[in-house]
Amino acid sequence: MEKKYVIGVDIGGQTSKLGIVDTRGNVLARSRIRTDKHDDVNLYVKELGEAIRELAKQVDGIENIRGIGIGAPNGNYYHGTIEYAPNLRWKGKIELAKLVNAEVGLPVAVTNDANAAAVGEMTYGAARGMKHFIMITLGTGVGSGIVIDGKVVYGYDGFAGELGHTIQVRNNGRLCGCGRSGCLEAYASAVGVARTAREILETTDRPTILRDLPWDKITSKDVFEAATQGDEVAIDIFNFTGNILGAALADFVAFSAPEAIILFGGLTDAGDLIRKPVEEALENNLLALWKGKVKLLFSELDGDDAAILGASALAWEL
Amino acid sequence: MEKKYVIGVDIGGQTSKLGIVDTRGNVLARSRIRTDKHDDVNLYVKELGEAIRELAKQVDGIENIRGIGIGAPNGNYYHGTIEYAPNLRWKGKIELAKLVNAEVGLPVAVTNDANAAAVGEMTYGAARGMKHFIMITLGTGVGSGIVIDGKVVYGYDGFAGELGHTIQVRNNGRLCGCGRSGCLEAYASAVGVARTAREILETTDRPTILRDLPWDKITSKDVFEAATQGDEVAIDIFNFTGNILGAALADFVAFSAPEAIILFGGLTDAGDLIRKPVEEALENNLLALWKGKVKLLFSELDGDDAAILGASALAWEL
Repeated sequence: MEKKYVIGVDIGGQTSKLGIVDTRGNVLARSRIRTDKHDDVNLYVKELGEAIRELAKQVDGIENIRGIGIGAPNGNYYHGTIEYAPNLRWKGKIELAKLVNAEVGLPVAVTNDANAAAVGEMTYGAARGMKHFIMITLGTGVGSGIVIDGKVVYGYDGFAGELGHTIQVRNNGRLCGCGRSGCLEAYASAVGVARTAREILETTDRPTILRDLPWDKITSKDVFEAATQGDEVAIDIFNFTGNILGAALADFVAFSAPEAIILFGGLTDAGDLIRKPVEEALENNLLALWKGKVKLLFSELDGDDAAILGASALAWEL
Repeated sequence: MEKKYVIGVDIGGQTSKLGIVDTRGNVLARSRIRTDKHDDVNLYVKELGEAIRELAKQVDGIENIRGIGIGAPNGNYYHGTIEYAPNLRWKGKIELAKLVNAEVGLPVAVTNDANAAAVGEMTYGAARGMKHFIMITLGTGVGSGIVIDGKVVYGYDGFAGELGHTIQVRNNGRLCGCGRSGCLEAYASAVGVARTAREILETTDRPTILRDLPWDKITSKDVFEAATQGDEVAIDIFNFTGNILGAALADFVAFSAPEAIILFGGLTDAGDLIRKPVEEALENNLLALWKGKVKLLFSELDGDDAAILGASALAWEL
């Protein structure tokens, strides 16, 4: 009998979400466990195994599951490992694929969340049928998954595709979480948008409803809500963010000449507020030969299930 | 009988060089014709065909040749074309592979010179055995050939790998030949080095033997010769160039996580004068996970034959 389902596991710092997915990208059942409960990864894997077996009952048992795809911070596809993830309790190199396989008896693939998103988009979303595209995930940080000739680029060591850590502001750039300065992530992430807001509030007298909020608590969501109410400062914050992101994307095009760039994650909830400045900066900065030729798309994966879908898509290739 | 030889053709703006190459990367015979003699590409292809047949006599005729690889400005591997090359007399899209195949009766592959160099390095040079590397060609311009999983990246349209046209100086950058400003090529090419020299002469009073030369005729070779004589301004010019190039390379690593970056072309004649600042800037700018892990190499293809070797290597894959 053909195995008709896969399981996707999205490991976040606090919560691990899992779901059963069919070939069309429908999430048939969902579950979640805590990621941060145990220092010992073996105890986590035991709980994950129980959750997987419980979930599999909804499709008549584990024998109908083809495999498990896991998206995790610092996930390494080549080794099936999580390596030195700063936001997880398990230190060093964790042999996650091996451990989960031993617990559940199914084939397991591991990658990072941005690469998982790229595979998900190619399997179920906006990149169906595309062989060359770049996925940019705009969340707390900025991640990327690069697809060339229909395959995710993992590079020599399995960690390729860190476009959030290309330097976009070479002088006096913002300090980034990676310890360097001027990274794309320090500007185009949700955190970056909030930093831009605070910078404008601090360095100008421009009137804005953002001033009514506690200065150090402003989030990108606040900026979005202000912008939808027509707040000019908030709109300018999206323009500033989009300018930096679009110019960065133009350089990425010079690398792999993709058919499309797909934006994914919280910042895309802002719709045209972010799409338009990104599109404009991308076009203005492209080398002549690519002008008007590179599509800028938003993810077509449903936001709540996107991470599970992305991770699950890995398992079809096992 | 096995066909033991390939022919490499390097098409430059003025001269086309060709050579017969064996599997070990020995160039057994060489020849050249003018590139810029005819507006009609058919007349050029006729002359090229004659030169190829003449050359093939030295290995007992064309029946011992497996195929022809051509490196050309704006060469497109997918289509076998030269497309809108600004420095050639043939305008628009030129169906070069088709024309040469019709003239000579051998399979023909076309790509641009930087991609050809990458294939050459992988076949005969410093990248033998490597699956993931980036080739940077430092000549009149700056080109690049990106290899992932043992294959050159051509992208959706065949023009991937224009890293010379990533923006390295976002504000007040130098005007580039492509019409935009701040491109790597405007700094790290031979022309860029000469521009740096003229900028320093113009904006400072620093003593240097470069001042003895006619200001508008200074070349990167002059800067090299001055630097080897200990001229501090000339040495600083290489440091400045290396800083910009090394920082750019660190961003390229974030894309494809290569095992090595290989520098190729005239600027590498400067040896440690350019290697050291590039290496230092690369290391200083790398994301922590890659520090100390990415090799910086110089091409191992013999300079005079490098372009022929690169182009010829394409033909082994035909």
